[in-house]
Amino acid sequence: MDFETAVFDKEYITLGDRREAIIRGGRHLFDRLPRAFDGVNQIGVIGWGPQGSAQAQNLRDSLNGAIKVTVGLRSGSGSFDQARAAGFREEDGTLGEMFEVIRASDLVILLISDAAQAELYDQIFAALRPGTTLGFSHGFLLGHLTAAGKQFPAEVDVIAVCPKGMGASVRALYVQGKEVNGAGINASFAVQQDVTGHATDRALAWSIALGAPYTFQTTLRSEYLSDLSGERAMLLAGVHGIVESLYRRYRDHGMSDENAFRHSTESVTGPISKIISKDGLDGLYRRLDSDGRAVFAQAYSAAYPVGVELTHEIYDEVLSGNEINSVVLAGQRLARFPMGKIDQADMWQVGQKVRADRVENDIPLDPFTAGVFCGVMMAQVDVLLERGHPYSEIANESVIEAVDSLNPYMHARGVAYMVDNCSTTARLGARKWAPRFDYLLTQQAYPAVDNEQQAVDTKPFEAFEGHVIHQVLRVCAELRPSVDIFVE
Amino acid sequence: MDFETAVFDKEYITLGDRREAIIRGGRHLFDRLPRAFDGVNQIGVIGWGPQGSAQAQNLRDSLNGAIKVTVGLRSGSGSFDQARAAGFREEDGTLGEMFEVIRASDLVILLISDAAQAELYDQIFAALRPGTTLGFSHGFLLGHLTAAGKQFPAEVDVIAVCPKGMGASVRALYVQGKEVNGAGINASFAVQQDVTGHATDRALAWSIALGAPYTFQTTLRSEYLSDLSGERAMLLAGVHGIVESLYRRYRDHGMSDENAFRHSTESVTGPISKIISKDGLDGLYRRLDSDGRAVFAQAYSAAYPVGVELTHEIYDEVLSGNEINSVVLAGQRLARFPMGKIDQADMWQVGQKVRADRVENDIPLDPFTAGVFCGVMMAQVDVLLERGHPYSEIANESVIEAVDSLNPYMHARGVAYMVDNCSTTARLGARKWAPRFDYLLTQQAYPAVDNEQQAVDTKPFEAFEGHVIHQVLRVCAELRPSVDIFVE
Repeated sequence: MDFETAVFDKEYITLGDRREAIIRGGRHLFDRLPRAFDGVNQIGVIGWGPQGSAQAQNLRDSLNGAIKVTVGLRSGSGSFDQARAAGFREEDGTLGEMFEVIRASDLVILLISDAAQAELYDQIFAALRPGTTLGFSHGFLLGHLTAAGKQFPAEVDVIAVCPKGMGASVRALYVQGKEVNGAGINASFAVQQDVTGHATDRALAWSIALGAPYTFQTTLRSEYLSDLSGERAMLLAGVHGIVESLYRRYRDHGMSDENAFRHSTESVTGPISKIISKDGLDGLYRRLDSDGRAVFAQAYSAAYPVGVELTHEIYDEVLSGNEINSVVLAGQRLARFPMGKIDQADMWQVGQKVRADRVENDIPLDPFTAGVFCGVMMAQVDVLLERGHPYSEIANESVIEAVDSLNPYMHARGVAYMVDNCSTTARLGARKWAPRFDYLLTQQAYPAVDNEQQAVDTKPFEAFEGHVIHQVLRVCAELRPSVDIFVE
Repeated sequence: MDFETAVFDKEYITLGDRREAIIRGGRHLFDRLPRAFDGVNQIGVIGWGPQGSAQAQNLRDSLNGAIKVTVGLRSGSGSFDQARAAGFREEDGTLGEMFEVIRASDLVILLISDAAQAELYDQIFAALRPGTTLGFSHGFLLGHLTAAGKQFPAEVDVIAVCPKGMGASVRALYVQGKEVNGAGINASFAVQQDVTGHATDRALAWSIALGAPYTFQTTLRSEYLSDLSGERAMLLAGVHGIVESLYRRYRDHGMSDENAFRHSTESVTGPISKIISKDGLDGLYRRLDSDGRAVFAQAYSAAYPVGVELTHEIYDEVLSGNEINSVVLAGQRLARFPMGKIDQADMWQVGQKVRADRVENDIPLDPFTAGVFCGVMMAQVDVLLERGHPYSEIANESVIEAVDSLNPYMHARGVAYMVDNCSTTARLGARKWAPRFDYLLTQQAYPAVDNEQQAVDTKPFEAFEGHVIHQVLRVCAELRPSVDIFVE
């Protein structure tokens, strides 16, 4: 995979045994955006969910009036007021009914929910003028079309820019990085169809305008396979199931509710994520003393097989179209059975109290928790490697998005906040797969650790220290945002 | 739906507002079997799993030499020894290689695993002689063929007889009922294709030979939809998730491990199932004192919505073909990732001890446990009613199979035994859906009960006492086996 750009400066980075072409971002590149968007007089951002609101504002701020950014919403949508509050207005043509905006835009960035995409794509395709560019921030609709034996309209560009973080992070890091030459969330880009010949530069410009510190290349198919799998595994469901199972385990071993929460959830979303973000998985391990390293290694080796088994299952479900079909079916039930919140369960009530009383520096770096977390995380890395994904995608979908975007939000606002602020597709995935991680860890991994007759098979950990991912993460860390995310 | 039989005595029973045609079983009917099997010189039972071994032996015993019953196994199968130990022999032509047995048989009863059916159906269809009868004990293959756009071969009968209980029960009740005019597990039958004109009588004879106390009519499609949904909901995954969540709750409320196990799992598999079996769901409720009834009603109302939501999800997944596709995909991973046992987790270790020390009469009839169990059970009843299933099927798939077949086995041998002795398809379903029931009960139902600001919405329980299912279960109870199952 490689790409050509007439506007930006392509670089190569070496990840493992492969070279990947990337574009480094920065505010100093914003004056090149109009050239890269040549032929685009209006960008229509359709939808006002977490991604829609973040991207519309970042694009508008980065383009600074050079190109009109217009938000399109379903007529009667309750989001009109929020878009107005953010400065988008019917009067100046920066806010309107979605199909009118689609018809008037040269780049249409479709950020409505997956369910809405599945429902409306025929009408949307019909509203696109030939020669315009259709953009996505993940590849769900490609998966849906593939399952249905359908295709994108032939006469438009189809591109994607996929920030490897939740919408709230895309906006927060951009704003927080204003004074330090930008900061944002890494993004992948993909060119699925290039009718105009401008598809690559348009995609790169979109990504730089969002504030992506670095932009790497993928395909729309590779993106949705890793994105849907990643959020169902490590990024959302996995971490949820891990901390639920650990919280229970620590209480069973005699810890108070508050302490069990600190050693499970707080440890993951706090020190473990922070250390991985700066120093990688091996850096986290080296931070432990020798007793801690032994505990880490054992927990890692016990949790890794559970992670591999479940992540392969998740990947197969996504690859087969099952998972996308389930999301569509669930969408049809949501009016009758709205998704309940998870935060009323005892554990999350305890968590609210613990977060309120938090002293950041007192949060324990629990070596058992670290071992389980890293074991499942590395399992996802290995599954995505086996399935042929590029290293940038693997590192971002398995590690960086977790420690630089999602976990800091969980740390500040709780797991419930995170779950409730992700897309419907991600929430459905978390509800479906988190309990699976919890059960398999409880049924398989922890009994293996506790078994006095038979030691845990150490093979998984033996592959840890020499794993290629450490070098990959070191290269990626050099490209990381210029500020740490700060969640208010 | 109705049917005609030239050999057996059709009766009508009134269930709710509908009349259903049924056949009552009994050993006094065994002398009619040869006439009903007219034209069948050999019955080939393919496979030696729990259903295969049970059905082959029941058929042989009931036919008593009038028709040859031959077991067919994959060449090299490890089950040859077990089949020989049960009296089937290569020497007398009652044991052989499966494709040879299929070619030689006039009625082929296909009881190999679902995964094997999905893998081998082309070869199996090719081995069937025109005019023979192909029989199933559930409709998985129809679901698989439908998803693949394929069909059964046109020149053979396709029938099903589906015992509403696990294979071990099919054999155990038959043996235990030898002295009291038979006893077995209720079964449904379906005629999918009737080329010979004998399909109905062959199906009824097969069912009576298995010992079914009563046989009701369904379609192969209705059967697999309710069967796959039922085992993923109430029969296996549901009850597993319920007792896990209750065990945790009771421990959190200060009970000892042993007591929490008694009030959750033991209460469900012991007194609650026994009372429902004899006196129905309303009989269980009436057994409680007034305090207990209040607790039951609240737990029922809180659990019912969780049951409805999840059972609809399960049903949609089955109906869409997703669930069947998942089973096929899982089958492809099983060699690399064998299913782990669940019984090493702490809860089931406690359970082993509790079962060993059990005093049957001291097992508590816990009203909260009863309310949760009945709430989820009734939710399944209502979902299957909404989806248009016949009452017999609903009652058997939601209630009778649980309390007369599965739960007594769980009571005697533990949940792990049950899970490990069900089909691969059922085990996969239990692993997938049990944690979902657990999580939603813990996240939604129990917090609703514990909420001091807001009472539980009592609508679900208001519909309990007047529910049609009570009359349906009373009619079915009159047809129940002449002995209680006894698990050694």
